[in-house]
Amino acid sequence: MLLITLSKRSAVEPFHAMDILAEANRLRQAGRPVISMAVGQPSHPAPKAALDAADEALKHGRVGYTDALGLRDLREAIASSYRMRHGAIIDPARIAVTTGSSAAFNLAFLALFDPGDAVAIARPGYPAYRNILKALGLHVVEVPVTAETGYTLTPASLERAETKAGHKLKGVLLASPANPTGTVTGREALKRLVNYCDSRNIAFISDEIYHGLTFVGEETSAAEISENVVVINSFSKYYCMTGWRIGWMVLPEMLIRPVECLAQSLYISAPELSQRAAKAAFSAEDELDVYKESYRTNRDFLMSRLPELGLPLASPMDGAFYAYVDTSRYSNDSMDFAKRMLAEIDVAATPGLDFDPLEGHRALRFSYAGSVSDIAEAVGRIGGWLK
Amino acid sequence: MLLITLSKRSAVEPFHAMDILAEANRLRQAGRPVISMAVGQPSHPAPKAALDAADEALKHGRVGYTDALGLRDLREAIASSYRMRHGAIIDPARIAVTTGSSAAFNLAFLALFDPGDAVAIARPGYPAYRNILKALGLHVVEVPVTAETGYTLTPASLERAETKAGHKLKGVLLASPANPTGTVTGREALKRLVNYCDSRNIAFISDEIYHGLTFVGEETSAAEISENVVVINSFSKYYCMTGWRIGWMVLPEMLIRPVECLAQSLYISAPELSQRAAKAAFSAEDELDVYKESYRTNRDFLMSRLPELGLPLASPMDGAFYAYVDTSRYSNDSMDFAKRMLAEIDVAATPGLDFDPLEGHRALRFSYAGSVSDIAEAVGRIGGWLK
Repeated sequence: MLLITLSKRSAVEPFHAMDILAEANRLRQAGRPVISMAVGQPSHPAPKAALDAADEALKHGRVGYTDALGLRDLREAIASSYRMRHGAIIDPARIAVTTGSSAAFNLAFLALFDPGDAVAIARPGYPAYRNILKALGLHVVEVPVTAETGYTLTPASLERAETKAGHKLKGVLLASPANPTGTVTGREALKRLVNYCDSRNIAFISDEIYHGLTFVGEETSAAEISENVVVINSFSKYYCMTGWRIGWMVLPEMLIRPVECLAQSLYISAPELSQRAAKAAFSAEDELDVYKESYRTNRDFLMSRLPELGLPLASPMDGAFYAYVDTSRYSNDSMDFAKRMLAEIDVAATPGLDFDPLEGHRALRFSYAGSVSDIAEAVGRIGGWLK
Repeated sequence: MLLITLSKRSAVEPFHAMDILAEANRLRQAGRPVISMAVGQPSHPAPKAALDAADEALKHGRVGYTDALGLRDLREAIASSYRMRHGAIIDPARIAVTTGSSAAFNLAFLALFDPGDAVAIARPGYPAYRNILKALGLHVVEVPVTAETGYTLTPASLERAETKAGHKLKGVLLASPANPTGTVTGREALKRLVNYCDSRNIAFISDEIYHGLTFVGEETSAAEISENVVVINSFSKYYCMTGWRIGWMVLPEMLIRPVECLAQSLYISAPELSQRAAKAAFSAEDELDVYKESYRTNRDFLMSRLPELGLPLASPMDGAFYAYVDTSRYSNDSMDFAKRMLAEIDVAATPGLDFDPLEGHRALRFSYAGSVSDIAEAVGRIGGWLK
């Protein structure tokens, strides 16, 4: 057996939520009554209109490559959604359809940054940001978000982080609503950040994947504020279409062609069936808003029950569908805590190390995108287990 | 309007075939009778069993994330296919399901190579290799393949290229059957290459996406020869599932976990519906072999007609579904030639610059994966046009 040398950059951290998902799937296949609150994935199916559109496309037979930037009518429908939701006029030419938001992050990072460039993200935050940035040779500047900063990034916290890192920032990435903190960054705060970045030639990337799932506060798209930002969104969360792998970007004019060329070679195109289904999903907001109400029920329940069980909230639950809790009363090793909880009571949650390499060892994230009865059952089991 | 700085690495070449596809789509929507021989895409739909499986999965409703390495039963089915086709025993744990071969290339390059590493590819060859390698900061060593080397890579040509480039090779990527040349690299030649790479700690990546479409010569998988190679394949070509975006890798043991971790963050998982459909496609080989026979008909027709029209073959047509021809009798600017052909007679083909930055300006690639009647009609139009 001869030797292959692994690259240095292949040494990214696992996305523990996905490891837990794999283990939960294994247990479920073995007949165990697993309830997964680990992965940020609605238990609801895609809306009926989307399923019907996919069915129709299947009947037509050939499912082929599309333009690298996506089907024209889907790009137009996405652009229209900004007019309806935000009163913003977006040229459909600025929309790139992507294979989930995952592809959108990769494309944005490749198009904007060269190896060694510094990009700021919130800590705690979505682990794939950090892992993709590292795999692409970028310098990750993790900016702590706490009660003092309203759990979001601010010009002052970015300035502090830049000084501390000793690297001039080339990019800033902010999610609102945020994962795992649930933070909703309001219009004025978002404006201040975008203006701060614009004035310093820092690229601003706005992850809006949890738009549609704001429970407290106002939902602003960075696309309303500036034509100079990269907005990333997806049909995975509000639209309940995770496994379809379909998302989009709103691009500044000058990024359209570079992103198109990169996408041609790196992705060819997003899955066609998913593109056809996604377009239809825009007509299903009544159905989707019913799902959102079930998340609200789960949210209200967890917001009161988790602290009662000795798992106080580590951040607000203003948006998205996560409860991020402090496990330190029971364990300062939340990875072990999560593994035992899955092994002993078949409840899966995600250890905080995914989101926060420094302080996540005493945090746990629960996704509440499951059904109301599953969440109630899971919390019942946790209550019994913690006693 | 403020300034965003593009990254240097965003300056990848367009994949001209995709640009031509976009233009062909635009013309078709405008009612023009476009025949596309530009993109390597079967005109046949996915096999019935695959469509039925997708339909069944749609009825079940939720289409979700899968394990990052793919659904277990699909990985098992892929592993079994190596036993049946090649007599090779592959542990399903070594199979990674990917979002098309595109994702597989990106994952292989990230897992194996660090910025500055040199990787050899054939020239002419599939342009996305070059573009992805460049975007990831790798040094691309293009090795000319000509009649003298049997249109494939050889230990001697690799050695020459390495000396000329002044970089020690870290990787070699070979496609067989090859795009655009159609070269099928036989078992002994493949063995010599794999052994050469193994003996020098060069990672060998075998692109087998055109397996199942060999017309002349023997079809060997590098997975039969060594457990140390990375094999990449897809359901896009023989299985007629381009737009489903579903492919796979066979990985050396030590690459499994790094690829899993990278895939978790970069892709989450391949589209679930496509995974379910792909598994069913393995049962459809009778149907698919009928399609293959229609490609053979097209191949035999083009092999005689194109040279008669003054477009001699620039390489054999032993496998895949491409005719790569020399346009120099009519034009040394095959990009212009392709644009005029599309504008004037509604026939799309891909300019050779996609495949060969040095000599592709007098080459053109025709895909013959279309229907027999379309190919005949297109060649009729070309004949009239060239007079």
